Amino acid sequence: MAEFFSSIPVIKYEGAGSTNPLAFKYYNADEVVAGKPMKEQLKFALSWWHTMGGDGTDMFGVGTADKTWGESSPEARAKAKVDAAFEIMTKLGIEYFCFHDRDLSPEYGSLAETNAKLDEVTDYIAEKMKADPTKKLLWGTAKCFDHPRFMHGAGTSPSADVFAFTAAQIKKAVEATVKLGGKGYVFWGGREGYETLLNTNMALELDNIEPKPKEPTKHQYDFDTATVLGFLRKYGLDKDFKMNIEANHATLAMHTFQHELRVARDNGVFGSIDANQGDMLLGWDTDQFPTNVYDTALCMYEVLKAGGFVNGGLNFDAKARRGSFTPEDIFHSYIAGMDAFALGLRIADKMISDGRLDKFVEDRYASWNTGIGADIIAGKATMADLEKYALEKGEVLDSLSSGRQEMLESILNNIMFSL
Amino acid sequence: MAEFFSSIPVIKYEGAGSTNPLAFKYYNADEVVAGKPMKEQLKFALSWWHTMGGDGTDMFGVGTADKTWGESSPEARAKAKVDAAFEIMTKLGIEYFCFHDRDLSPEYGSLAETNAKLDEVTDYIAEKMKADPTKKLLWGTAKCFDHPRFMHGAGTSPSADVFAFTAAQIKKAVEATVKLGGKGYVFWGGREGYETLLNTNMALELDNIEPKPKEPTKHQYDFDTATVLGFLRKYGLDKDFKMNIEANHATLAMHTFQHELRVARDNGVFGSIDANQGDMLLGWDTDQFPTNVYDTALCMYEVLKAGGFVNGGLNFDAKARRGSFTPEDIFHSYIAGMDAFALGLRIADKMISDGRLDKFVEDRYASWNTGIGADIIAGKATMADLEKYALEKGEVLDSLSSGRQEMLESILNNIMFSL
Amino acid sequence: MAEFFSSIPVIKYEGAGSTNPLAFKYYNADEVVAGKPMKEQLKFALSWWHTMGGDGTDMFGVGTADKTWGESSPEARAKAKVDAAFEIMTKLGIEYFCFHDRDLSPEYGSLAETNAKLDEVTDYIAEKMKADPTKKLLWGTAKCFDHPRFMHGAGTSPSADVFAFTAAQIKKAVEATVKLGGKGYVFWGGREGYETLLNTNMALELDNIEPKPKEPTKHQYDFDTATVLGFLRKYGLDKDFKMNIEANHATLAMHTFQHELRVARDNGVFGSIDANQGDMLLGWDTDQFPTNVYDTALCMYEVLKAGGFVNGGLNFDAKARRGSFTPEDIFHSYIAGMDAFALGLRIADKMISDGRLDKFVEDRYASWNTGIGADIIAGKATMADLEKYALEKGEVLDSLSSGRQEMLESILNNIMFSL
Amino acid sequence: MAEFFSSIPVIKYEGAGSTNPLAFKYYNADEVVAGKPMKEQLKFALSWWHTMGGDGTDMFGVGTADKTWGESSPEARAKAKVDAAFEIMTKLGIEYFCFHDRDLSPEYGSLAETNAKLDEVTDYIAEKMKADPTKKLLWGTAKCFDHPRFMHGAGTSPSADVFAFTAAQIKKAVEATVKLGGKGYVFWGGREGYETLLNTNMALELDNIEPKPKEPTKHQYDFDTATVLGFLRKYGLDKDFKMNIEANHATLAMHTFQHELRVARDNGVFGSIDANQGDMLLGWDTDQFPTNVYDTALCMYEVLKAGGFVNGGLNFDAKARRGSFTPEDIFHSYIAGMDAFALGLRIADKMISDGRLDKFVEDRYASWNTGIGADIIAGKATMADLEKYALEKGEVLDSLSSGRQEMLESILNNIMFSL
Repeated sequence: MAEFFSSIPVIKYEGAGSTNPLAFKYYNADEVVAGKPMKEQLKFALSWWHTMGGDGTDMFGVGTADKTWGESSPEARAKAKVDAAFEIMTKLGIEYFCFHDRDLSPEYGSLAETNAKLDEVTDYIAEKMKADPTKKLLWGTAKCFDHPRFMHGAGTSPSADVFAFTAAQIKKAVEATVKLGGKGYVFWGGREGYETLLNTNMALELDNIEPKPKEPTKHQYDFDTATVLGFLRKYGLDKDFKMNIEANHATLAMHTFQHELRVARDNGVFGSIDANQGDMLLGWDTDQFPTNVYDTALCMYEVLKAGGFVNGGLNFDAKARRGSFTPEDIFHSYIAGMDAFALGLRIADKMISDGRLDKFVEDRYASWNTGIGADIIAGKATMADLEKYALEKGEVLDSLSSGRQEMLESILNNIMFSL
Repeated sequence: MAEFFSSIPVIKYEGAGSTNPLAFKYYNADEVVAGKPMKEQLKFALSWWHTMGGDGTDMFGVGTADKTWGESSPEARAKAKVDAAFEIMTKLGIEYFCFHDRDLSPEYGSLAETNAKLDEVTDYIAEKMKADPTKKLLWGTAKCFDHPRFMHGAGTSPSADVFAFTAAQIKKAVEATVKLGGKGYVFWGGREGYETLLNTNMALELDNIEPKPKEPTKHQYDFDTATVLGFLRKYGLDKDFKMNIEANHATLAMHTFQHELRVARDNGVFGSIDANQGDMLLGWDTDQFPTNVYDTALCMYEVLKAGGFVNGGLNFDAKARRGSFTPEDIFHSYIAGMDAFALGLRIADKMISDGRLDKFVEDRYASWNTGIGADIIAGKATMADLEKYALEKGEVLDSLSSGRQEMLESILNNIMFSL
Repeated sequence: MAEFFSSIPVIKYEGAGSTNPLAFKYYNADEVVAGKPMKEQLKFALSWWHTMGGDGTDMFGVGTADKTWGESSPEARAKAKVDAAFEIMTKLGIEYFCFHDRDLSPEYGSLAETNAKLDEVTDYIAEKMKADPTKKLLWGTAKCFDHPRFMHGAGTSPSADVFAFTAAQIKKAVEATVKLGGKGYVFWGGREGYETLLNTNMALELDNIEPKPKEPTKHQYDFDTATVLGFLRKYGLDKDFKMNIEANHATLAMHTFQHELRVARDNGVFGSIDANQGDMLLGWDTDQFPTNVYDTALCMYEVLKAGGFVNGGLNFDAKARRGSFTPEDIFHSYIAGMDAFALGLRIADKMISDGRLDKFVEDRYASWNTGIGADIIAGKATMADLEKYALEKGEVLDSLSSGRQEMLESILNNIMFSL
Repeated sequence: MAEFFSSIPVIKYEGAGSTNPLAFKYYNADEVVAGKPMKEQLKFALSWWHTMGGDGTDMFGVGTADKTWGESSPEARAKAKVDAAFEIMTKLGIEYFCFHDRDLSPEYGSLAETNAKLDEVTDYIAEKMKADPTKKLLWGTAKCFDHPRFMHGAGTSPSADVFAFTAAQIKKAVEATVKLGGKGYVFWGGREGYETLLNTNMALELDNIEPKPKEPTKHQYDFDTATVLGFLRKYGLDKDFKMNIEANHATLAMHTFQHELRVARDNGVFGSIDANQGDMLLGWDTDQFPTNVYDTALCMYEVLKAGGFVNGGLNFDAKARRGSFTPEDIFHSYIAGMDAFALGLRIADKMISDGRLDKFVEDRYASWNTGIGADIIAGKATMADLEKYALEKGEVLDSLSSGRQEMLESILNNIMFSL
């Protein structure tokens, strides 16, 4: 089996003082942070779609990176992708991967043929996993949005035939995921939404599980975590699913990444993370490798507070920029993202051990622990009780303390910049 | 009782050919459209806050319009406001009004005193309503966001005292609304949200009923209709409430106004409308008088499809621009808004009677009425059935028809521009 | 020569009462509006890129429409495109077309070969134009953004070789435009900007001529009309160029379309229009066919006030939605756009002949025609004069009149809805 | 003279290890960084408007902070503000301040009286400055946007009287600035723009000097740095002015702060900075204290590359959040901002001394130093030369190197997190 990246060594941890671009400065896989080795806290996963298939194509230009893996037939290329992916994971020390079914193996003439060819590739992966048991499947999903048949949606298509086809494809993708021992399966509604209400019967269409507000459709039904929660509750499914939260989808929905994670955590549905970042000045899903340490720190703070990952992990749903087109850029990009999350984990751990931030919030809500506050929480105070209480007080302004946003932001900087 | 707008006549319908700026061109109160007189289809309401109190103050300048109504003591001014409001309603032929408690009567030294003074004003209004039974209260609400005590929220304050005070204020506002025969009461969370998660315990805070995504806080908990629905479902309250949808809040949440109305309609929670419009190039709640006829037409289409207003109506939650500072501008603004909604109603009625748009949507979803589609709807098709069906078909692309967005937009223009 | 659209008749004007989707309701080519036949006022042009080549591909899926024109070799397909384009133009009554060089003929092995093949296609077009002299070239441009060599920009590439290549390509595109009698040539900087300042020497890079703020790059140097004007003035070129204003680029830059047109008109650089519309809730260049009549009316108002088109025209830089994938959708889309602009022209003409809007603005600025205002305009009033004048006045608030925005919006609606 | 902040000590530098919230962790005034003491590199200035006058009022609520300074008459309050401001500056070690004329002293009955009262306050300030020569005026400006007379603009009002009044006010403000030895004067167009083009003669209105895209008006004429440059060039004034760049105005115009600074630097018009930050998820000018160290680092990188401040400085155009309402919050806010800029300066200095980033950019543009690149720069290569060069090459793709955005972002993190 050929080596695809012969110029790239195994990437090692060399510490913050190193200037070797092909070394980790902050990610030290076996170092224990917050009670577990970093590799268990972070559970990094390779994304098959962007990393193995994304060639830099955008709406204004063809691809700039060669992702043919030296093969021209679809069958041979699919296997070469597996070999290259395993080499990348090994060199980066990444143990997990994620896929859309069609990234593993493309469509052929009929669904039956497509399924058969997919089986061949998953057989091959299973073999490789047997040979190297450190490699694991984080999750699989079905790509029900790229083919023209999904132009009006898949699960929410106006065509019952398309719905049936989608169901069949998802059934197969779930089976493939189970076969490879996947920790989870993501229901991803890539084109479930509408372009115009002028042609849409919204009540008849349905919904799904990874939140995204828009793009490619004008409105995506799975807008954000709160919307998906409301949908699941409508159908009594909120105990059956966890959320896969994506940073860039959060900001497209005008929320911070931390906000979406907090909503998921507070409602007991935090599951997994699509790690990337958007550009706040751009209105589309840029899927950049995450390098903003404020975001990774606040993300890992929510993850640690949620008790860490159970079946989920950190999948890099990110692509190197179109101008970052060389094979080396794959490694620079993953190193950038892994180091940024390693910094985020170290800072989040310190935020918690430092205690200043948590203590402030605890004190701020102290009035709910005793007296009228405790009565309200306990459901013992009626509207009439509260009116009586308020009329006797007359004014309550003096019960307020400052929110101290600036001081807290300053403490966060202090924690970040004194590692 | 003095006349406040002696230069303004009763505004009459003069038809599209009139160039009299103080006449309606499209709103003809008693003309029957879609089976009911326009005044019943539209149920316009005056907003006490913007119309009687808003003086054009913005973040960069003091007020430009005089809204003292010739009085300097708060008690006398509150009564003068009532007189002026009734004059405006009479001259415009508006039968409903809406208020926040503190717009009727401001705060005094203690809650008890404030409540007593509020009673005096609602007594006075009750008297005026008795004298003119055409004047009705659409809804009341409590202003729990302007006073410094609400700086960190009201129902979601970190202070239990503030929560108790809020409960007492809302209790009184509900009582005042009932006393004046209000058709409804709006739970409006003006400052329920957070500025930074660094100081916030989001799980402890709660939620409410008119959706708004942001402003004044960075994040408002009642983000949009779907979010509020999810909240209500969590607490089993989704059968107890209807939504008051605001156009400008919809666009701040990155939805169209029609989208929010459709979500409410599809979920059986459509209630009432805060009629205004935002500026799509500006990121704050501009609360402009609605004049875009595309928006009013698609709004009234949803209202007619929902069966029209029951207890709700069209409240103008809108303010004349700061540069529109003369008393005449109140009338120009309401005429602009009422004529825009009259056009919207006429067009919506025609959209339905014309039938081209509805027919297109019906045809587009026809595959759900028979065969596999009907089986899916009936819950009779298993995943295995669908897989079998899809494998036999092999491909379903030929079941798709064009979405025809451009043709439909052209039909809409055709309907609008051939009244 | 084969007919490509045998099911499509020549599209005729049937008036607003027609429900024939394949007829014009408002565009009547030879009807005189504002002193000239509509076809001269509007000068519609077909866009070669979207119409002849755009197949509905987006970032999440492959094409849905077949734009191979029945041919598989690049040379034969290029000629078939010419035949199909001329058929579309003839059936729609469109006299102009626009192209990017590579839409006419793709790249081959070397620049020399590419140029030779382009010559063959322009020869063929010249022949067709000779046979049908009603067909004219509005403008040509060079596609210097799709090929990987332009990944870091063309005229602003860090590579001098790429700059040289770009210059050569533009030279050839200008020559092709001249050969076909083009009324103009557009300098279009498709990828002139940067992704990150971390790798960019902005001072060394340059600028161009059709404004666009972002996409595909994070920042495009030709951000908006004002920015391009500043650039041209820096190099003393502001008398040598006119602007090609695109509606969707205006809104991406957070301006209204009318704003950009007004800036161009006020500065004497209005040239031509890329007619389309964006979706104000989406943050990317959606290039939709224009159907919002407010926008087309205010656009045509600016065009008429600028004296109409000279060398420019209305090019539909618009693509049918991905779900509008049938050949008929090309015609529905153009009809939608042409009727929307025909309505816009009719309304703009009426706005001017009605006179209410223009009169209001004239009166509003009347104080500049006499007294201190005239002195200021004439440059005769010094700062000391103005201070003396103001000190004597003491206060000038009473010189202000209402801006009457709501009344003016109402007048606009009145004009629009009483055609 | 009373002490206003008796509980607040003089704020000292205690280093990153300190947890004293009333101490600097990173700002060490006399420590030399990049060749000068930090206080000279950063030249912090207090903003009279936000700090001395801003009480937390927003569009939905009255003020929460007491900024009466214990006085009720306007004259006494104006002097108390001076005393309090000097105490704040002394305790924070800030040497500069900035003002709008009306923040120093409000309007009285007539312009003459207003001017006379302003003289009294500037006399008092002059006295205080004499007593403590470390206190200096960075710049003054005129507040021509708050009073109702400026509702339609000041320098761009439709009323010539308002224009004259504005000129008189600015003349006086310039004189006051000169009297107090101001290093500069800022032309700030607070309300120069329009609400709707329907009532606006844009060609007659003019422009100014601190860029801002919108708010309070829909469109501000001084949109961004490039727009202001274009304006200045139109009137031949581009050599006479420098720009005062505000972070939050940059992001409202959809640019990064660094972008605006770079445009100013590249065009030789960098002057001064309004230090603050916006919230990228909010569409209005939030004027938050700057705490994002990425932004302060990239800002200071541009400042150092521009040669540092000459007459300009870092004015905190920032206000504590409405919920940060206690006197202590003034100090927490300034400490947060000053420490964030101190970190920014330290990082920027290290970015330059580290050299990796600058070296990358230099190498990336190396092709312009020799051969065809040098010929182009020198103006020696004609279009025909370039065509010949490109035709001979045939293809130039191999002259491209990767943009390495991810690697560069990773290097930036490495520099930031290894101070």
